[in-house]
Amino acid sequence: MFMVKVDVEENDGVLVPPANFSTVEDGIFRSGFPEPSNFGFLETLNLRSIIYLCPEAYPQENMDFVDAHNIKLFQFGIEGKTDSSSTSIPSYTVTQALKVLIDVRNHPVLIHCKRGKHRTGCLVGCFRKLQTWCLSSVFEEYKRFAGVKWRANDLRFIESFEVMSLRQCLYSIIYQYQGYGSNKRRLLYGEEGIQKPKN
Amino acid sequence: MFMVKVDVEENDGVLVPPANFSTVEDGIFRSGFPEPSNFGFLETLNLRSIIYLCPEAYPQENMDFVDAHNIKLFQFGIEGKTDSSSTSIPSYTVTQALKVLIDVRNHPVLIHCKRGKHRTGCLVGCFRKLQTWCLSSVFEEYKRFAGVKWRANDLRFIESFEVMSLRQCLYSIIYQYQGYGSNKRRLLYGEEGIQKPKN
Repeated sequence: MFMVKVDVEENDGVLVPPANFSTVEDGIFRSGFPEPSNFGFLETLNLRSIIYLCPEAYPQENMDFVDAHNIKLFQFGIEGKTDSSSTSIPSYTVTQALKVLIDVRNHPVLIHCKRGKHRTGCLVGCFRKLQTWCLSSVFEEYKRFAGVKWRANDLRFIESFEVMSLRQCLYSIIYQYQGYGSNKRRLLYGEEGIQKPKN
Repeated sequence: MFMVKVDVEENDGVLVPPANFSTVEDGIFRSGFPEPSNFGFLETLNLRSIIYLCPEAYPQENMDFVDAHNIKLFQFGIEGKTDSSSTSIPSYTVTQALKVLIDVRNHPVLIHCKRGKHRTGCLVGCFRKLQTWCLSSVFEEYKRFAGVKWRANDLRFIESFEVMSLRQCLYSIIYQYQGYGSNKRRLLYGEEGIQKPKN
């Protein structure tokens, strides 16, 4: 047996990322729900904010972590059961979350829901559309994190999500393209000019 | 049918990342073998180097891309069939690749093999051990990219890979911890001081 589940909080300097953790882009991270055992790892990210996608209240210990590190918490309550046709993902809420996500003043930012699969996957998928990734690559990334739990409804949501209106809306108040390197496809606030995200 | 495979080279400004593409860390990327249809996307990464883990010669079109963009190609030929006990992953080669990988003078760097699953997964796994990630998180990340093709042999390789000697060896010539943010767990060359990676 070489695969042992780590469930201790102190690991002699060993870092424990939250489940399903990954870097989305420079300054943007994604994961499942952070447990206290992950707080040591999260500290190394120097987060400025967290985008939390569940309707449930944030647990006290996570609240304490966030307060102690001056992290801004943005909560967008999206129901978890989006696999049935009765509950659909609210595109307005995703749009609002996207606006927070692409604002570099909030970076480094961690996006998380419960498992880091569906709600987080939908938000990241819409973000990739804004970055003009082709849809098959967006779906591939979504499925990498959702695994066997992937939902056709989520892919349909991502495909039909309208980024053009968001782009138009953002163009009117803020923008400047920057990219991975110099072609970064991320929006910066106009009034801040070419200020670099904290890193 | 909403999932269509994109196989055209020009996509009207739509970016096509290579299969299994992801950001590992600020300045470090991983993927499967880049096709010409991915070159437009790769340009946005402003790569300084590529770590290529297969023994096969680099195709001419990829060679042309690399030359045209002044990208340094580091090839470490590791056989692909590492699932049988007869062929084991050469830890010396992985160590050499790791030295290139953690040298920020080579960043931004793309690691790739054929599918971005096994050879790339092993190298990234060893890199995570250097970063003091706990083993269960390292395995989780490995499996996220390998999917159902994950190999117990690869996990055993990652677990038994000795990072301590690499650390010792590196400590003697180069180092400085920097991190995600200010705690970046990445080694910098001593003679360059705290020079930031190009971004």
